[in-house]
Amino acid sequence: MGSTAEGRDSALWLDIPKGPLSAYRARASFSSKELLLFWDDQDVVEFKETIFKTLENDPLFARSPGTDLPLDKQRELNFLRCKRIFEYDFFRVDELLENFMKIPVLLNSLGMYDWSLAAKCVLHFLVFGSALFNSASELRFKYLEKMFNLEIFGCFALTELSHGSNTKGMRTTAHYDPATQEFILHSPDFEAAKFWVGNMGKTATHAVVFAQLYMPDGQCHGLHSFLVQIRDPKTLLPMPGVMVGDIGKKLGQNGLDNGFAMFHKVRIPRQNLLDRTGNVTPEGTYSTPFKDGRRRFRASLGPLSSGRIAIIGFSVTNLKLAVTIALRFSATRCQFGPTDEEEIPVLDYPLQQWRLLPYLAAAFALDLFLKTIFSYLMELQKDLLSGEYGAKQAELGREIHVLSSAGKPLASWTAQRGIQECREACGGHGYLAINRLGELRNDNDPNCTYEGDNNVLLQQTSNYLLSILEHKLQGGAPYTRPLKIVDFLEAYPEILGRKFTGSSKADWLDSAAPLAAYHWLVCYLLHGSHQKFSQEKKSTGSDFEARNNSQVYYCQPLALVFLEFVVVQQFHDHTHSSSVPLSLQPVLRRLSMLYGLWSLSQHTALLYQGGYLAGEQAGRAMQDAILALCMQLKDDAVALVDVIAPPDFILSSPIGKADGELYKNLWTAIMQQEGILERATWWPEFPTNKPLTIRPKSQL
Amino acid sequence: MGSTAEGRDSALWLDIPKGPLSAYRARASFSSKELLLFWDDQDVVEFKETIFKTLENDPLFARSPGTDLPLDKQRELNFLRCKRIFEYDFFRVDELLENFMKIPVLLNSLGMYDWSLAAKCVLHFLVFGSALFNSASELRFKYLEKMFNLEIFGCFALTELSHGSNTKGMRTTAHYDPATQEFILHSPDFEAAKFWVGNMGKTATHAVVFAQLYMPDGQCHGLHSFLVQIRDPKTLLPMPGVMVGDIGKKLGQNGLDNGFAMFHKVRIPRQNLLDRTGNVTPEGTYSTPFKDGRRRFRASLGPLSSGRIAIIGFSVTNLKLAVTIALRFSATRCQFGPTDEEEIPVLDYPLQQWRLLPYLAAAFALDLFLKTIFSYLMELQKDLLSGEYGAKQAELGREIHVLSSAGKPLASWTAQRGIQECREACGGHGYLAINRLGELRNDNDPNCTYEGDNNVLLQQTSNYLLSILEHKLQGGAPYTRPLKIVDFLEAYPEILGRKFTGSSKADWLDSAAPLAAYHWLVCYLLHGSHQKFSQEKKSTGSDFEARNNSQVYYCQPLALVFLEFVVVQQFHDHTHSSSVPLSLQPVLRRLSMLYGLWSLSQHTALLYQGGYLAGEQAGRAMQDAILALCMQLKDDAVALVDVIAPPDFILSSPIGKADGELYKNLWTAIMQQEGILERATWWPEFPTNKPLTIRPKSQL
Repeated sequence: MGSTAEGRDSALWLDIPKGPLSAYRARASFSSKELLLFWDDQDVVEFKETIFKTLENDPLFARSPGTDLPLDKQRELNFLRCKRIFEYDFFRVDELLENFMKIPVLLNSLGMYDWSLAAKCVLHFLVFGSALFNSASELRFKYLEKMFNLEIFGCFALTELSHGSNTKGMRTTAHYDPATQEFILHSPDFEAAKFWVGNMGKTATHAVVFAQLYMPDGQCHGLHSFLVQIRDPKTLLPMPGVMVGDIGKKLGQNGLDNGFAMFHKVRIPRQNLLDRTGNVTPEGTYSTPFKDGRRRFRASLGPLSSGRIAIIGFSVTNLKLAVTIALRFSATRCQFGPTDEEEIPVLDYPLQQWRLLPYLAAAFALDLFLKTIFSYLMELQKDLLSGEYGAKQAELGREIHVLSSAGKPLASWTAQRGIQECREACGGHGYLAINRLGELRNDNDPNCTYEGDNNVLLQQTSNYLLSILEHKLQGGAPYTRPLKIVDFLEAYPEILGRKFTGSSKADWLDSAAPLAAYHWLVCYLLHGSHQKFSQEKKSTGSDFEARNNSQVYYCQPLALVFLEFVVVQQFHDHTHSSSVPLSLQPVLRRLSMLYGLWSLSQHTALLYQGGYLAGEQAGRAMQDAILALCMQLKDDAVALVDVIAPPDFILSSPIGKADGELYKNLWTAIMQQEGILERATWWPEFPTNKPLTIRPKSQL
Repeated sequence: MGSTAEGRDSALWLDIPKGPLSAYRARASFSSKELLLFWDDQDVVEFKETIFKTLENDPLFARSPGTDLPLDKQRELNFLRCKRIFEYDFFRVDELLENFMKIPVLLNSLGMYDWSLAAKCVLHFLVFGSALFNSASELRFKYLEKMFNLEIFGCFALTELSHGSNTKGMRTTAHYDPATQEFILHSPDFEAAKFWVGNMGKTATHAVVFAQLYMPDGQCHGLHSFLVQIRDPKTLLPMPGVMVGDIGKKLGQNGLDNGFAMFHKVRIPRQNLLDRTGNVTPEGTYSTPFKDGRRRFRASLGPLSSGRIAIIGFSVTNLKLAVTIALRFSATRCQFGPTDEEEIPVLDYPLQQWRLLPYLAAAFALDLFLKTIFSYLMELQKDLLSGEYGAKQAELGREIHVLSSAGKPLASWTAQRGIQECREACGGHGYLAINRLGELRNDNDPNCTYEGDNNVLLQQTSNYLLSILEHKLQGGAPYTRPLKIVDFLEAYPEILGRKFTGSSKADWLDSAAPLAAYHWLVCYLLHGSHQKFSQEKKSTGSDFEARNNSQVYYCQPLALVFLEFVVVQQFHDHTHSSSVPLSLQPVLRRLSMLYGLWSLSQHTALLYQGGYLAGEQAGRAMQDAILALCMQLKDDAVALVDVIAPPDFILSSPIGKADGELYKNLWTAIMQQEGILERATWWPEFPTNKPLTIRPKSQL
């Protein structure tokens, strides 16, 4: 991953201006440029640069710090920018497939600028576009080019007002009418209105609508998707029978128009059934391609993971932006000091380091995880496109599903907590909208919810782990799993008997220590979850109840801990591979250790409870190791941030600017806001002009 | 606290409409009305009702759900509402003092409606007003009545652009000029601009400005406060030499105008020195009343705590609103079920209970803490007003300071995390602005920062605890502390040798169990912090460094754990007092147990590490106890929420309405928003009318 050659050095945006942060940069143990080019491929770095520069040079993308745009204006601007992105032809399939890592890079670079823009493009191009691409050739032929040219604008309408996670519960219907060879789409009542659909509020002309398919004989074949035109592309007015509108203001991403739609017996051609899961003959006979169902279904889980993998990327990106802002701020904000005269940067306080540096480490760890899981997905996609649906693809699809189902929760929660910590770590200035931490918190928040609520999704991963254990306990033969992520469970239950034998900080700073602890921890939680589920099954007689009753303290942490383990292992292996230049080894290994120990330390109670740790010293030593790593990484923090930070224009946070001129940048940005020195328009209301009139208090 | 009499029952707002939540209410183990009147005094309940009804009946306070008001409009509306609140004469000193508990009730009732309104009133009336009230009679006489009539509007200008927590570092100066008997206020540069000052942005005519006082001989006497006119009340235009403006959009509370000001040699009369801390004769001689400094200073700590205590109330109030919304939603939102046909409320899932019910318990626990600490503060205030500055008042002031310094962090963080959990627990609908969880999160956030950053404040409490231990270790005689909150430390170090001897769920459900564990935990952290500090002192030779190096894992958790202990103990004592009606005992004791065990469970690692717990069963049993309490409280949850919830108009969250008509209320609210069915104003920009023009991608 990446080359160490300096390459076209001058074109890199990493020509950091001099300023108060220079002193910190000078103390770094490594070169930011070298790490940048090790961490990402040269052409990925250049692709990012192209995107960033293109936006910065186009006045349509000008930042308007502190401006208070009305909702409609935000949506207009976002639509125009989306259109411009397509004019710049960034979404070129051939180029993206040439180096597939450019796909997440493109989405996340747009997201770094504004998540509403990224979401609008992604929902149209990747989500709606994939549904078209996977449909019958007739539809594909008719619509794909229009999709590229934005002559039609798409959305993906699955969730309803009263159903989200429980997709089976959707109540929109599609009745087939052989007389006209049409489907009749219908919403039985407003609880079945499609709801929350991105792009549907104001823009979309076409929707992929999920509905229960009914045949003329009255049989329901379950949820299928249909292409439905909802607006006239010429006028953007709704089509007959469609009530479509905007659900209004959200906590964030307000450039994106989320909407609702109700269908009143809307007729669409038979060809508009998107035939991934089933097809209907003109006469009204239903057929499904799912014959060798299990394998094909499992393989198809992989591509379904793509939304969740994208969200892992969104979350990591938010975390990168937040730690950039908070660490640059912390390195330049001085407060208190050893004497009344001398003030020191708040980053020099161990508490501030401990609050922020683990999130910096997490940003690197999760970024690596994103790249790894995305490469697995691309491998699978390649196989599937060439028609390979074998056992290997089925297992790979399943493993990607398992990783993405817990990876999205881990990444989105880490980002959400990290952003909050960064906000607080910047004190009052972190609470100014202009500094962007609020926007990041608000825009990251839905990552915890969409494409599967975090807590619901985690069950996919814990169920898988339980099934692996069950297979083993029942004497099932070992079988090949392409990613080998659970291969260590072959040593179960022997692992359960292991213990931490060290007692010093140095013992924890051995890179094998957190990995060994995670092996034990996963086995311990797996054992406990299996036991708990069996007990509950016995006492309630219901799988449903047994599963519900074994989430808290068992299956839920099992899935999260397993994912942490995978991330820690990958980061460890990457930083210990022979490809790491000697000059980068120390800092990368420290980051890897810090992420591992910090994550692990959140489970110290379990480590003690299950007997993996014993005695006071074991726990104290882990804490000492974490603090030592923070102290060692402190002087590298600003240089590390330079590797993951976008240019100032994209970051758009005065307190996080690269030159570190904290107060100059902040003051200037404040002064550039509209009307800040003007008196209030409502000054004549002041009581000197309109005195108080005392009213009777109680208006009961 | 409170009477059990049913009183003027009909006037209570607690006449809950029938609807889908009725079934839950019918299953409650107690009467909401009875609990309401036990929890609050009858006249407090009626006072709340008066405030709520008054707002609901006045069109100026009409809700405009989903409307996207521009910043200036938000500020105008907030100013007009503030004015109206004064016209309703809610801030009547005599009435508020008659039952002092009405003070927090008034602030929090206004805050339940809108925090910007509460903040605007509080900053003018309580913060600015107190500074006037505590000043020399001349100033008081001149300005108090104008303050009441809003002929002047006040703000409190302490923090500067480059200094917040470190108040000693403020750089605004006030030079005394005996020739004219004036002070000359001056900002040396923009880093010394007063910044973040609430009400200063657009409204305030007068500011209490903190500046370094310089006498003609060049001596600096440190920070003093001065009354400075910053705008003309007739025109709201700035006074000569004052540059004053608005700092712009914040993450929340945008009805409040936070501002900045720079002073260019602004002259004010000698009388405008607010003489709390020092005075200056006409000739230019400085004197300070702080002769018997220590006692008086300590007693004065109490009143200084009032800001932090108010914030504890704000936080608890936010938590109440959030759990109300999330629990009513969870009891009516159905998703999945034992069969494909049957769906159950998400509140029936143990995971959902475990996510939310501890925050419900926390809302009650912290509400009680608020009332208790506020009554201590009023006791102290009464003594000080009657001139009593004895040892008792000094100790009481110190203890209140200790409680508020850690109470604000505990309450604000609990609320912030609780709101986030509530947002996520409501899924996508929690992300709709109209449902208010985003506003609560954004409005609560600054509670973690202002009136002392949480992490900085906690040091006040840990330092106190360390000083108590030091006193004891050096053989100091026991002395009387009015609140007795640290009296259990008399049993130190014996407590350190104690262990949890139980092994079952029942052992943890004994109400003495969490209290005993907290005794040990505080002692353990105190011992560890003391040791750590001493070691660091030895190795660094610096108090400053030793203190910084002993925050993480030691002093910081010590302060928080101590405060949790106080809250748990108070809630325990209150729910076990003889005043609790038999019918309310079970539910209140369960809440108390749940808060205690849930809080404690966050420190399980330490309990094991220090040897208070041993063996797997001890930890498991605690988890089982928590889950059992959640299960027992589930059917009471909706009725408990009815006790702390305001009327629907005030709550202003369609998914949280009292009748539980989740989808009807939400759908109606969506439909009532402006322009939701209208096509976008920018429809002619759509590519059907204005096709894409492909541009060269790279604009480098």
